[in-house]
Amino acid sequence: MATPLEPFDYVVFGATGDLTMRKLLPALYWRYRDGQMPKGARVIGTARSALDDAAFRDRARDALGKFIKPADLDPAQLAEFLDMVFYVSLDGAKADADWSAMKAVFADAPPERVRVFYLATSPELYGDICRNLSDQGLVTPAARVVLEKPIGHDLESARQINDSVGQYFAETQIFRIDHYLGKETVQNLIALRFANPVFERLWDSDAISSVQITAAETVGVESRAAYYDHSGALRDMIQNHLLQVMCLVAMEPPASLASEDVHIEKLKVLHALKPITPGDVGQVVVRGQYASGEMDGKPVPGYVEELGHDSNTETFVALRAEVHSWRWGSVPFYLRSGKRLPNKVSEIVITFRRPPWSIFPNLSEPNKLVIRLQPEEGIELSIMSKDPTPDGMTLRPADIDISFEKAFGRRYPDAYERLLMDTVRGDSVLFMRRAEVEAAWTWVQPILDAWKHGSPKPYKAGTWGPEAARAMLDADNRRWHEDMG
Amino acid sequence: MATPLEPFDYVVFGATGDLTMRKLLPALYWRYRDGQMPKGARVIGTARSALDDAAFRDRARDALGKFIKPADLDPAQLAEFLDMVFYVSLDGAKADADWSAMKAVFADAPPERVRVFYLATSPELYGDICRNLSDQGLVTPAARVVLEKPIGHDLESARQINDSVGQYFAETQIFRIDHYLGKETVQNLIALRFANPVFERLWDSDAISSVQITAAETVGVESRAAYYDHSGALRDMIQNHLLQVMCLVAMEPPASLASEDVHIEKLKVLHALKPITPGDVGQVVVRGQYASGEMDGKPVPGYVEELGHDSNTETFVALRAEVHSWRWGSVPFYLRSGKRLPNKVSEIVITFRRPPWSIFPNLSEPNKLVIRLQPEEGIELSIMSKDPTPDGMTLRPADIDISFEKAFGRRYPDAYERLLMDTVRGDSVLFMRRAEVEAAWTWVQPILDAWKHGSPKPYKAGTWGPEAARAMLDADNRRWHEDMG
Repeated sequence: MATPLEPFDYVVFGATGDLTMRKLLPALYWRYRDGQMPKGARVIGTARSALDDAAFRDRARDALGKFIKPADLDPAQLAEFLDMVFYVSLDGAKADADWSAMKAVFADAPPERVRVFYLATSPELYGDICRNLSDQGLVTPAARVVLEKPIGHDLESARQINDSVGQYFAETQIFRIDHYLGKETVQNLIALRFANPVFERLWDSDAISSVQITAAETVGVESRAAYYDHSGALRDMIQNHLLQVMCLVAMEPPASLASEDVHIEKLKVLHALKPITPGDVGQVVVRGQYASGEMDGKPVPGYVEELGHDSNTETFVALRAEVHSWRWGSVPFYLRSGKRLPNKVSEIVITFRRPPWSIFPNLSEPNKLVIRLQPEEGIELSIMSKDPTPDGMTLRPADIDISFEKAFGRRYPDAYERLLMDTVRGDSVLFMRRAEVEAAWTWVQPILDAWKHGSPKPYKAGTWGPEAARAMLDADNRRWHEDMG
Repeated sequence: MATPLEPFDYVVFGATGDLTMRKLLPALYWRYRDGQMPKGARVIGTARSALDDAAFRDRARDALGKFIKPADLDPAQLAEFLDMVFYVSLDGAKADADWSAMKAVFADAPPERVRVFYLATSPELYGDICRNLSDQGLVTPAARVVLEKPIGHDLESARQINDSVGQYFAETQIFRIDHYLGKETVQNLIALRFANPVFERLWDSDAISSVQITAAETVGVESRAAYYDHSGALRDMIQNHLLQVMCLVAMEPPASLASEDVHIEKLKVLHALKPITPGDVGQVVVRGQYASGEMDGKPVPGYVEELGHDSNTETFVALRAEVHSWRWGSVPFYLRSGKRLPNKVSEIVITFRRPPWSIFPNLSEPNKLVIRLQPEEGIELSIMSKDPTPDGMTLRPADIDISFEKAFGRRYPDAYERLLMDTVRGDSVLFMRRAEVEAAWTWVQPILDAWKHGSPKPYKAGTWGPEAARAMLDADNRRWHEDMG
């Protein structure tokens, strides 16, 4: 059951944007339904648009109607929730804006009352908003700030953002959100590994042959082309989500579940990553951009056609990482993300080593543990079993579903529900520390530098990226998950 | 798919008995249905009763009607199967019986044609029947003999039976049946262990804390009291079934699946068993006999009441074995079997060690692998998972069903189907070698000797045996499966 919280104030900058409507308000509504929005708690949306509370509540009602099933939207509960929602019209990045309405919100708030400032805005504004919050006297010891990705577009800009936010908030008050870490299955990875000797004893280079972490999308960039062209798959997915997930797969058991202890272990993984030298990039990183092709039998345009001009921005990255530690030795971690791939799937595939010897008449497939984050969270273990025929001892692969949603008969909370409440609780274990963000940028920076030259390899929309991605695994005598038997 | 076999002759001594009707004929019928009884194959029942083919077929038809679902009994197929069934009236143990009818059966059989003599008779007759078969010239190189348990009632008598059968059949022609070894799940144990590094890497004293093997029955001895009183649970269940299953759990990977290679490994386990000295018996073996009690809320009589006189025969045994090897060190193997226990269940419970340290707020249960042979074959892995609440990292046990019957959507063949066809194929991997039988008797002999004195401890029918069985595990700081959390 959800632990009750003291009344708090949740201020969302960029409140009229897509993220607020699609994720933050539904998450807060669910937390309200589960009793985690106590009487007196407030959600204060803020943006430049001139709206009043009623108009913002109308938008919120529309969004909830769209993103929450009618059966879960009790009219009385919805009305009570919306009564907790307020709006302040404000350009938070402007020092000379009129902050009086926002200050009035907190005029009577006791100092120990938690206030969270969620910055669902462009990252260039983070510094300014934080400075203004501070100048207006709104950064109390009980204040927290939540930063959405991307934290910068390279190491230098990430440092600048961290520096400027860090002038007004202590590191313990800063919550860098990565919604991948809020997914139940990602958190369950911690439980599976450290509560189950049957898994953790297998969790090393003696037993594991390779790890694949894939985040594949079927969509193209479409209307987001202009934004995406400044980012690309490496910045948008690999530097944050996939490296974060990799940290949880690869880390040593932390001393405790306290945020500091977990961050120490994650940072250790990032520091243990074999550096990619400029000369390596061509061998261990594949950079792709989708050309026109077909999705579900329908023709789709290429990236450049959607964008309207030539571009070297990658819509696909596959890379080979190594965690140089006793546990992992030279086990490859293949990370891959792309758009216009055949399936929408985010998954971790742990491939175990083959039996050193087989006594069976037919070949044994290697054991595999597939931890799926999307589209449906779930865990599957592939083992070999005796084919139940009354003669011989022929093996047959069997996939064991070890998902728990069914077993527990309970809705999986959305990642944002967990993470938003963690910011209220002040628990940053599932967020990214400054040192992690910068270590991740440090590791990818040589790739970014190398990519100032040359161009991505084209791949047909609806395929698994450039042929070079497959060739990279072929060279290691391995295969991507979709190519496995 | 079942592999086709060449035509063969299957002679069953004791053909009018319960085992033939309940198990052997239904098993042969299923093998016929699956195409493993080729045209020309014959089943020849033999017993003392004066029956002709037609009368025996009537009995067979009745038995099949009773033990096979009507939907699986196609009348045309049934008729065709029964056409393959014959009967010879004969007292096979008598040298001066009239063997002419039996000899006539084989008069025209080519020498390479497989003939199996299945002795579903009292073990005292094995030697005589084999001698007579030999005297009548029926033991060809393609002949095999199948011996049902019990092979003797102690080491000495087992040796005598093996000696006398061995005078007429080579060891490779002798198939000592233990139907536990024919169970799909027991065979799957071999596949699970040796085709899956995720299991075999955990299969030692580093990872495993204890192994329990239980065969519990709810029935009492009832009308079988007179027979059972000469046997008891140690002879009836532990010496054969449970020790055999233990061999498969504990053995090293065999060089191959060839019978000889597997038997080497099983024998190695039996030889590695820590001997039980007369002084140990009181500590590591619990001997029980059920008194009156209740099953399903109904009063049931005690063993002595059913028998009609006093007896020291045990209806319950629990013992603590150790396999003294590098793999197993001092991991206890708890073996237990009894009648009038609360549930009918045969299972292997592998309990893994607890995590050396827990970082979670609530206690982690040890991982468990439960391999169930009865009532329904199946395998279950108990692990700890994150409770999917949106706060905290609380653990919750989850049982993962890794049974394959559903996954494969196929009927599990009965143990006898497999084993009968193995005798035709000449594959003895799932049978007991002479050396194993005698090693098992050697190991239990000190218990039998010690039990010449003293009496079993009474336990109330419908309970898990005498309190001493629980106390034995308490002393090891362990619990029986049904007492685990």
